Amino acid sequence: MFVRNLRSAFLFPVVLLLGFVPLVRAEEGMWTFDNPPLKQLAEKYNFHPTQEWLDHIRLSSVRLNDGGSGSFISPDGLLLTNHHVARFQLQKNSTAEHDYVRDGFYAAMPDQEMKSPDLEVNVLVGMQDVTARVEGAAKGIADDAQALKAREAEMAAIEKENKDKTGLRSDVVTLYNGGEYWLYQYKAYTDVRLVFAPEEQAAFFGGDPDNFTYPRYDLDMALYRVYDNGKPLHTENYLKWSAKGAAPGELVFVSGHPGSSARQDTMSQLLMERDVREPAIIEYLQRRIAVAQQFAKQGPEQARLVASDIFYLQNSLKVYLGRSVALSDKAILTKKQAEEDDLRAKVAANPDWQKEYGDAWDEVARAVELARPRMRGQIFRRTDSHLFTFALEIVQYVAEVKKPDGERLPQFHEAGLDSLRFQMLSPARIYPSTEKLFMANALRLAIEKLGPDDAYVQAILQGGDVDKTVGALVDGTRLADPAFRKSLLDGGEAAVAASNDPMIAAARRADPVWRANYLYFRDKIESVLDAAGEKLGKARFAVYGKNAYPDATFTLRLSYGTVDGYPYNGTIAPPFTTFYGLYDRSASFSDKPPFDLTPKEAAARDKLDLATPLNFVCTADIIGGNSGSPVVNREGELVGLIFDGDIESLAGDFVYDGTRNRAVAVHSAGIIEGLRKIYGVGALADELEGKQ
Amino acid sequence: MFVRNLRSAFLFPVVLLLGFVPLVRAEEGMWTFDNPPLKQLAEKYNFHPTQEWLDHIRLSSVRLNDGGSGSFISPDGLLLTNHHVARFQLQKNSTAEHDYVRDGFYAAMPDQEMKSPDLEVNVLVGMQDVTARVEGAAKGIADDAQALKAREAEMAAIEKENKDKTGLRSDVVTLYNGGEYWLYQYKAYTDVRLVFAPEEQAAFFGGDPDNFTYPRYDLDMALYRVYDNGKPLHTENYLKWSAKGAAPGELVFVSGHPGSSARQDTMSQLLMERDVREPAIIEYLQRRIAVAQQFAKQGPEQARLVASDIFYLQNSLKVYLGRSVALSDKAILTKKQAEEDDLRAKVAANPDWQKEYGDAWDEVARAVELARPRMRGQIFRRTDSHLFTFALEIVQYVAEVKKPDGERLPQFHEAGLDSLRFQMLSPARIYPSTEKLFMANALRLAIEKLGPDDAYVQAILQGGDVDKTVGALVDGTRLADPAFRKSLLDGGEAAVAASNDPMIAAARRADPVWRANYLYFRDKIESVLDAAGEKLGKARFAVYGKNAYPDATFTLRLSYGTVDGYPYNGTIAPPFTTFYGLYDRSASFSDKPPFDLTPKEAAARDKLDLATPLNFVCTADIIGGNSGSPVVNREGELVGLIFDGDIESLAGDFVYDGTRNRAVAVHSAGIIEGLRKIYGVGALADELEGKQ
Repeated sequence: MFVRNLRSAFLFPVVLLLGFVPLVRAEEGMWTFDNPPLKQLAEKYNFHPTQEWLDHIRLSSVRLNDGGSGSFISPDGLLLTNHHVARFQLQKNSTAEHDYVRDGFYAAMPDQEMKSPDLEVNVLVGMQDVTARVEGAAKGIADDAQALKAREAEMAAIEKENKDKTGLRSDVVTLYNGGEYWLYQYKAYTDVRLVFAPEEQAAFFGGDPDNFTYPRYDLDMALYRVYDNGKPLHTENYLKWSAKGAAPGELVFVSGHPGSSARQDTMSQLLMERDVREPAIIEYLQRRIAVAQQFAKQGPEQARLVASDIFYLQNSLKVYLGRSVALSDKAILTKKQAEEDDLRAKVAANPDWQKEYGDAWDEVARAVELARPRMRGQIFRRTDSHLFTFALEIVQYVAEVKKPDGERLPQFHEAGLDSLRFQMLSPARIYPSTEKLFMANALRLAIEKLGPDDAYVQAILQGGDVDKTVGALVDGTRLADPAFRKSLLDGGEAAVAASNDPMIAAARRADPVWRANYLYFRDKIESVLDAAGEKLGKARFAVYGKNAYPDATFTLRLSYGTVDGYPYNGTIAPPFTTFYGLYDRSASFSDKPPFDLTPKEAAARDKLDLATPLNFVCTADIIGGNSGSPVVNREGELVGLIFDGDIESLAGDFVYDGTRNRAVAVHSAGIIEGLRKIYGVGALADELEGKQ
Repeated sequence: MFVRNLRSAFLFPVVLLLGFVPLVRAEEGMWTFDNPPLKQLAEKYNFHPTQEWLDHIRLSSVRLNDGGSGSFISPDGLLLTNHHVARFQLQKNSTAEHDYVRDGFYAAMPDQEMKSPDLEVNVLVGMQDVTARVEGAAKGIADDAQALKAREAEMAAIEKENKDKTGLRSDVVTLYNGGEYWLYQYKAYTDVRLVFAPEEQAAFFGGDPDNFTYPRYDLDMALYRVYDNGKPLHTENYLKWSAKGAAPGELVFVSGHPGSSARQDTMSQLLMERDVREPAIIEYLQRRIAVAQQFAKQGPEQARLVASDIFYLQNSLKVYLGRSVALSDKAILTKKQAEEDDLRAKVAANPDWQKEYGDAWDEVARAVELARPRMRGQIFRRTDSHLFTFALEIVQYVAEVKKPDGERLPQFHEAGLDSLRFQMLSPARIYPSTEKLFMANALRLAIEKLGPDDAYVQAILQGGDVDKTVGALVDGTRLADPAFRKSLLDGGEAAVAASNDPMIAAARRADPVWRANYLYFRDKIESVLDAAGEKLGKARFAVYGKNAYPDATFTLRLSYGTVDGYPYNGTIAPPFTTFYGLYDRSASFSDKPPFDLTPKEAAARDKLDLATPLNFVCTADIIGGNSGSPVVNREGELVGLIFDGDIESLAGDFVYDGTRNRAVAVHSAGIIEGLRKIYGVGALADELEGKQ
């Protein structure tokens, strides 16, 4: 599936992406809405989208702060996304009595719609190129670290100005790795209520084995309703439903928020990724999954508590294993090396370019060499504790907000504080048992990998036994209570300094270590990569022209492609699957998990038109974060719902291969068939189809 | 599917297989019935087959001279094999009016059963170790070529003695590449009548794309009835039908005739295979397929005429492409090299062994170097003409049968003449249009690849234009008439020498070139490989002991394994598929060829229990030639029908990989469900299930 990769609870914002723009292949590209691939669409498909068409798609698309995408599909704020994106909130709303993840949910009446504890939904309502202003702020500053600080301060200023002026969430985003800076303005909604979700097993049929593969048979969908001022959001910007849905050979578009890609990394970055970072992350994930699985065996309630952790961790593990395979693939590395060699040779052949950009690759390589010995620390210095994360955020928050906006850590800029506070004050319940489980495991693993004397670990443990210390921290803290967190935020530095909450105390001790490390990365590594990245981006524009798209940054992008099968397993995968396939795969495994039917699916078999398309694939270029993105046709109608990529798409972080890289979606006809005949929620299907 | 690879119409019997016995992995092995894997079965499965069990399986198994396997499944001579094995005879019985390949066949009454023009069925009724006698004949002969001749003469003598004594077909077969020689005695049946075949599209659903892949949904079955003295064969040696069929995790056996494997080839042989032979064969196949496809476009009758050619050629192409991938796979080559290095090192460490066997690898390498420049000639010197093949066989036949048995070309030994004459006098119709098409293509390709002056090509063309000469040969010959062929065979050398039939004349001119080449290969290459092979086989016995199976030789073998899925496509393939999957895959491709349902399949959808298993996979080690083999359970009941291997099994020519190499079979429950509900032939299903 296409949820974003592993989100670190240890908040070093290490950005190692940078680069140059490769030659774009057919249907490759995650395009910004200011630079849609009009030329390709005209030449290959004779399609000429109007500005109205583009605006409508953009304004119907949403970003969920849980790490996925979605779209409005009714004039009354109905929002379509994936079950596995909604799962974050389903898990947070579940209790020992009601497991909404497992059992699904349906609100027959508006007053039954279920509020999400900490979901924020963003709609990109404005975009503005601020490159000149951001670059201007650093003009003439020779020192890379100083230049980065100047740019960051200017970005914060732009954000604040615009937030104050418009009330909109205002983010300055870096595109083309510093080639461009844009102000993105979002309308943010925080009253988002769940209307419908199927059972996990229907959404995730095939489980971890089938994850990131195709053919698939998953009803990976969920429906929220967005409220504005306590009432369903009325909007003209929603996608009309296509009852027929995606057809083989059809041109389709994906409008969503790809999380991050590394297509423009230099070879030195890719090799560090392959040799240092990936193996460490894979080991971390495997260890944490093992601990969670062990815990789950203790009983049904324990199993429920860690089910979503296991789900997302296994998803990440499959991603990293796929990336690892891609980076060990000689053909991929050879291709990347050839691209780099070509650009370097062309730069070297022009004395002006060589003078301006020629040293960028070596600068990147030097920064990578500085990062390399600290990489394992980046990965294993973690607590995997929600409570500790809150503690550290609070300690840093109260210190940062006192500073001028331009001098703060980036996550505490004025313009972002609303969203940050919304997260920090989430009422979602925190479970001491899993807090202890994961925190003890993380610290134990950190000791094993980094040694018992690691400054960060010891700032927390102070030489104490891991289990005892973690137990005392979790049992002793009041941070599970959002009111307590609010009192500290409101009380400011004095309240935090005076607090005898043990978790706050631990965070106070860890904060200086965190900051030292952060500053080292920012000033010695990120600033160099930033400067070199800008050179590489400009070199690429100079050599190849500007027919390019930027690496993914969890900002809105438009991809396009055709509904089409591909070569797989010695034969060809079909453009779509049907309900027949669901029953085949289940029967083929004797209905054993993870290939078991839900009782509702089993009961509905004879009611369904089994030939109805259930899932389909298209060549659109997407990546983690696109989960929940709408798939639309030329008429701007919704024909499908992105929920995954095929196994070959895991190389897509580094390179797009149009022959085998496929986006996997739920078919709009399959959604309606499922809602009406498996779930018997015809009224909801009517609302989707605009029949009300 | 698992028909044997490409059968050459150019009859050089080049045997480049030889070798040493690798360490046997779990479930690896195509075991002879004199040396079944009792130890493995006892240890892993606690199964102890009795001699009666083994004899019963052996006597229920049959070999078809069309290149496949089969089994008796009723006391009245009913024989189960694949549609794609029966296809040879279906094609030969078809006319412009009746296309039995496409439309299938059913004989409701015994007198409607359809005679096969030239099908011979063999049952292995006796086996005898004659190693001492064959080796004794060459004892003390230092020259490799002389030694080979002496062994061949002795083998011919043994065959003739036993044929005369018993009336049975008597073949001396070489096993362990000369480590052992066995007399195999077969009861041969030539009155074999078709009872049932489904439509090609039901048998071969998914066509060339799905060929050699799994999951599959093919009813690749056909039923013959064997007659003896004009009446259905009554036999106690038949397999009882299992209505339940193969179950996941169950121990199963495959009893059939794997065609050839190269697992004991040395590295020098594998590298020549990879670098010289495979690319040439692939190019030949691609060219011939293109010519046939072009011809098929001329009209429906033309399409019918070449349909089976295209079918078998595409099958071979997929095999050779798979072999090519396997031989380019670094992991496979590394493994083969390591095996060879290990054996060489252990031989070198023992002075006696080193003296006896140490030079074998270098001898093989020298023989390979001699063969290498002539390899392309072996492949491209061909006519692809049935008429020319008959002509050459007739020219050689009349010359050879005059000689003492021991001095003849191997295919003309006395003991084999009955079977050979049965083939040479086949009444199967020969079509001038395809004769011209393929012969002209073959000669044109030979000129392109070997140059215009190639002695073999010019013996046929005599400098003439290809199309004109081929046209004159095909139009002018009377060889399409079996009575004419018989008159030449009966007339002997004088009749053949006097014949003014232009094809016979061409064969007379080509024969000396053929013989010179044959003798070069036999005396300079095969004899060396034979001697070296014997050394390597014995070295392997000495180093590793005799827990081994010989490379495949189209003789009866027993394989075993479990019904089990495997890792594929990033997930796992199921142990079996169901009829649901058939309808899913068809609907997924919008019912377009080769994924279209037959009218009967479409009509039967609501009658079928769609959850019935249709195909399944097991870990038994099989290879081309095993097509049609029965899959039996511990009770000796038929639970399935082998028809293919998965795409990973194409590496099986060189190495067995138990994790992913799978045999693909039709499930016995699927056969019954299909017969009863798709074809409405309940009486036949009753006979299979023993309900009559």
